[in-house]
Amino acid sequence: MAAWGQRLAGVRGVLLDISGVLFDGAEGSGVPIAGSVEAVARLKRSRLKVRFCTNESQKSLGDLVELLQQLGFDISEGEVTAPAPATCLILKERGLRPYLLISDGIRSEFDQIDTSNPNCVVIADAGESFSYQNMNKAFQVLMELENPVLISLGKGRYYKETSGLMLDVGAYVKALEYACGIEAEVVGKPSPEYFKSALQEMGLEAHQAIMIGDDIVGDVGGAQRCGMRALQVRTGKFRKISPEFTASPPLFC
Amino acid sequence: MAAWGQRLAGVRGVLLDISGVLFDGAEGSGVPIAGSVEAVARLKRSRLKVRFCTNESQKSLGDLVELLQQLGFDISEGEVTAPAPATCLILKERGLRPYLLISDGIRSEFDQIDTSNPNCVVIADAGESFSYQNMNKAFQVLMELENPVLISLGKGRYYKETSGLMLDVGAYVKALEYACGIEAEVVGKPSPEYFKSALQEMGLEAHQAIMIGDDIVGDVGGAQRCGMRALQVRTGKFRKISPEFTASPPLFC
Repeated sequence: MAAWGQRLAGVRGVLLDISGVLFDGAEGSGVPIAGSVEAVARLKRSRLKVRFCTNESQKSLGDLVELLQQLGFDISEGEVTAPAPATCLILKERGLRPYLLISDGIRSEFDQIDTSNPNCVVIADAGESFSYQNMNKAFQVLMELENPVLISLGKGRYYKETSGLMLDVGAYVKALEYACGIEAEVVGKPSPEYFKSALQEMGLEAHQAIMIGDDIVGDVGGAQRCGMRALQVRTGKFRKISPEFTASPPLFC
Repeated sequence: MAAWGQRLAGVRGVLLDISGVLFDGAEGSGVPIAGSVEAVARLKRSRLKVRFCTNESQKSLGDLVELLQQLGFDISEGEVTAPAPATCLILKERGLRPYLLISDGIRSEFDQIDTSNPNCVVIADAGESFSYQNMNKAFQVLMELENPVLISLGKGRYYKETSGLMLDVGAYVKALEYACGIEAEVVGKPSPEYFKSALQEMGLEAHQAIMIGDDIVGDVGGAQRCGMRALQVRTGKFRKISPEFTASPPLFC
């Protein structure tokens, strides 16, 4: 425990990834990861500040929080940093009218956004909506633009549901990047803006916070590049045979 | 014409790409590119050897040739180099049992291939069959393998149909490469094996042949890397605003 005390010296806040750390998703539902409901409750009873930091882009923030509450978590919308609201701000600031390659579950987040005559593409974890037809429409919109803009809500490779590993938005971003010869702008982890925004909400400096996630790139790498400490759990998408294997301990055991 | 004479000095054979050079595809059919039927006829009447070199992987070779014949082209199956037969040879030689992420149109080419208990993935231009479900199945097969093998029939970014530009197999290859952290083996243009095989069929050395295509990477780059001359037409997927723009002349005008 002495080692842990040193590692966590000066930490005043914890940023918690959600999928793969608190729960594994399933079709329209999910299952809490053993010990996670109680771990969140204990953190919230402690002196530490807690913020939930997700790249969830298939469900609206409201639906996600409702699901987590039903699973027993002490969580509210105001405690969550998610990429969709940040994306809407960017679209409005830059006068962008997106073709939305997104799931129906998150469409309500973009209700106030003008989508007529698209001059950019917004891509999120669309699941079954990643049909050839929808991907090709996004591709054609980008190819018609003089300065194609592709905004991606996260760039994860895959995530874990109870039924197994699932392709995440990052794979489809790579497809469009290759086809169009462009590079996407990522809103969400691991972008520095995302972590800075979460830290601002917590009123903490980077060195005072630790990020806990199951994604070595999106969670751990992104947070470390911002000067935060980070810890990879062995739940969710974590795989021992992964080339990304690191010896970080599990969070809840 | 003097310049052309110099450029073509010593050429004894012509390799012709099909889609975007001879015709633009459409749903189950296609439209010949102006002048192309007569150009092929003239080439075949000349002293030059002619071979058709395609990455077509949505239709079987038989269906493709039948369509081209219906459009008026003088072409037979034996004159075409295509990636599916080469892929079948590789699968048999290496004892590979693929999960086939392909269109129904080309499935008959793999009739003799054992697809039970897959130990690799073969990906072709699957069009509408690039559903999330099918892509995720391919991803899951690869992630379960200790040494994941992904074989791709070509790696094109896009092609042109009469209705517009269409995402090609290369985009979906990139998606799986990123998600799985692997690199695909490409059968077809621009792989050197493909061009060598076509030259062998023609009984020519690389310096005696010229490749004519609409893809600056798959056709022109691939052929040039094999020591052949190459020419990019301004039909098919060719776009003046493309960063790949080169000043090559059109073939048929």
